[in-house]
Amino acid sequence: MASAYHIKKRLRDGSVLLIDKLNKAGEGNTAKSAGMFRSFFYSRTNFYLADSSIEFYRHIEKSGFNLGMRWIGYLWLFGESQFKRIELALRKMEERGGLFTVYDKEELRDKLKVNIEAAESDVGKVMNLANIENGLFVPKAGKIDVEKLVEFYETEFRRMGGKVVYGAKVDRIVVEPKISLEIPGEPYFWQDCTVKGVRVHGRIIEAKKIIIATGVWSSELLDPIGVDSYSKPKKRQIFVIRADKNRLRELLYVDGFNRYNCMPFTILPEPRIYIRPDIDEETFWIAYADDFNRSFKLEEDPQPEENYYRYGIYPVLTAYFPQFIDSYPINAWAGLYAINTIDHQPVIFEENNLIVVGAASGSGIMKADSLGRIVAAVYFEEEEAELYGNRRFNVSDLGIKKRRVEREIFVI
Amino acid sequence: MASAYHIKKRLRDGSVLLIDKLNKAGEGNTAKSAGMFRSFFYSRTNFYLADSSIEFYRHIEKSGFNLGMRWIGYLWLFGESQFKRIELALRKMEERGGLFTVYDKEELRDKLKVNIEAAESDVGKVMNLANIENGLFVPKAGKIDVEKLVEFYETEFRRMGGKVVYGAKVDRIVVEPKISLEIPGEPYFWQDCTVKGVRVHGRIIEAKKIIIATGVWSSELLDPIGVDSYSKPKKRQIFVIRADKNRLRELLYVDGFNRYNCMPFTILPEPRIYIRPDIDEETFWIAYADDFNRSFKLEEDPQPEENYYRYGIYPVLTAYFPQFIDSYPINAWAGLYAINTIDHQPVIFEENNLIVVGAASGSGIMKADSLGRIVAAVYFEEEEAELYGNRRFNVSDLGIKKRRVEREIFVI
Repeated sequence: MASAYHIKKRLRDGSVLLIDKLNKAGEGNTAKSAGMFRSFFYSRTNFYLADSSIEFYRHIEKSGFNLGMRWIGYLWLFGESQFKRIELALRKMEERGGLFTVYDKEELRDKLKVNIEAAESDVGKVMNLANIENGLFVPKAGKIDVEKLVEFYETEFRRMGGKVVYGAKVDRIVVEPKISLEIPGEPYFWQDCTVKGVRVHGRIIEAKKIIIATGVWSSELLDPIGVDSYSKPKKRQIFVIRADKNRLRELLYVDGFNRYNCMPFTILPEPRIYIRPDIDEETFWIAYADDFNRSFKLEEDPQPEENYYRYGIYPVLTAYFPQFIDSYPINAWAGLYAINTIDHQPVIFEENNLIVVGAASGSGIMKADSLGRIVAAVYFEEEEAELYGNRRFNVSDLGIKKRRVEREIFVI
Repeated sequence: MASAYHIKKRLRDGSVLLIDKLNKAGEGNTAKSAGMFRSFFYSRTNFYLADSSIEFYRHIEKSGFNLGMRWIGYLWLFGESQFKRIELALRKMEERGGLFTVYDKEELRDKLKVNIEAAESDVGKVMNLANIENGLFVPKAGKIDVEKLVEFYETEFRRMGGKVVYGAKVDRIVVEPKISLEIPGEPYFWQDCTVKGVRVHGRIIEAKKIIIATGVWSSELLDPIGVDSYSKPKKRQIFVIRADKNRLRELLYVDGFNRYNCMPFTILPEPRIYIRPDIDEETFWIAYADDFNRSFKLEEDPQPEENYYRYGIYPVLTAYFPQFIDSYPINAWAGLYAINTIDHQPVIFEENNLIVVGAASGSGIMKADSLGRIVAAVYFEEEEAELYGNRRFNVSDLGIKKRRVEREIFVI
């Protein structure tokens, strides 16, 4: 939707058609996302993409379109050795202007009633938990209402004359020779060919350029034409706990971290389970992004696993935050990340007149605006994109041939 | 097989078991390969991997084990602008000791009776062919009998006490917690886990380390445990033309390129169709590696396409080499390349006690010995591998996290 918006905005009279197989934009994995954002990355690539997008979203809200942004901040909890490993990186980020506060363990214990000695218990030993030494709080971070964000782009896209077709599944991308010779099985490799359009319900919709921004479904469309999506799908699950006990309400409404007096988005030490507080609905969303042994698998309707909470998350969560003892999910769902397994950063490239954007690896929403602007720059065959806030970005940095992304240190 | 051989050679008393779902080693895509090798690459990564392997194969032959190596050389044909683009790279390769001869178009016409003005004809214009300006001949290159190469490794592997099991399809890789707590659905993400072994016909075969060297089938095994193979399968077809006409026999037995007085392995200008002469069976093997619009697809039994030769290869081939007019395949087959779409070079890494080697992108045979030695180095947890000829190679260069491969310019 962000790509469609930014292309249409610059095309003016040209026509842009957005096709979605679902009945509404943002109903796929966007709707299943935790909708978190942060402008705090070691990798300059990540930082530029996220920070510019977040600033644009802030600007949209200031213009009067509510995106439900809540600047609750991120709080990473660290064990002693973990924290030592990031100290040098932190110092560099500080020099670049990154804002953060380091809390010591006593402050964390007093504020959050977190168990800073989780490693000492029998359970903690079995699970290789860490004693908490420090907390890193980052204020320029929070959550956003993803549906409203999609709605903003859609409203503006339509207002400018952009067209949408929902419930329209693309069967395949149509490749044809530029000059047909009516040979059976065209195009052959010696023919200049072009991506003519897409086939939807047996009918071919033609376009000058085709943008594939279909997340985990990209491979299904791209594999048949021999183009890599550079991403693999992996299930991610979110479990919702209601703040229905006093001790949970106290945790939810903890003072001093942000203007809402709300618990920040909190990430445990290894294993990096996260807790996303929601003061609007008085719940906590709990999740963990497991890696090794979690299959790469494309599913139309991935399901959360009860045992994943019960035996995976619960014992770790309650070892650090005993407030969650005896609390079980009132709701849960699962979505798919489109993971770039090489460097976990997005990919944008053009091949013939096909533009591919994706592989955002779980941080697509917080980078969506920047990615949309870069896609528009590719569309207009520009070497540089201008992100929000007049920041210039080399389009080829997110491509494959001249890819240049900085490795990330803060991975959650 | 090369990995098994090199691990076994160094393990001595330790036991190494090789499992293959087919009834013999090398019966998969190895058997379908053109079996070509060259020690001429711009990329130092490619050069070291190939040159060391080729020198080892030469050494094996000198030791009395016939590998059917024929040093017929490679001949790339170039149009004027194409040749200009590689001249600087060629000069650098010459400085590094690369041996080659540049032929001019008249010499090529006189020797090979090649049509150096293919671009002029109507057909040539339609197909965007180039007039030939130069030929680049590389002598340290040729073909090898892949079955004999596999036989060498297998014989030696068995002689040292290595065991093989054929006709044994691995259903899945078995991951287990290091310490089982008998929780349903183990292992959970907070458990240290290990690759215990593989399941074959319902039975688990355990091993200290597991090496996955299954080419295009790697993703089938690795996706379920959430590990990327960094490769995608793409069909490649070979068509066999008998040298049954005088003009074809004259081309096959052309003088002056090599000691066999045989046509070199010849690569046409764009589209880079190749001609692999075979004086043993008096045939030419013809192929073209199509890219865009050729699907990524895993097939157990990929088939060659008659129209691919008739409408794809034939018109281009005969425009440059009219000797092939009215010649059609007496045989054809198809295999799958395991393509690394990022940099087209092999990948070797370990995750837990699982070692993955693959993504050789069509040059696995000419690099097999080096890859086997690097896998053995990973097995023994060494940072450097020693390739044949005492060449040191950084193991992490072919990994993912610290990957460092030089881009290739000579891609055919």
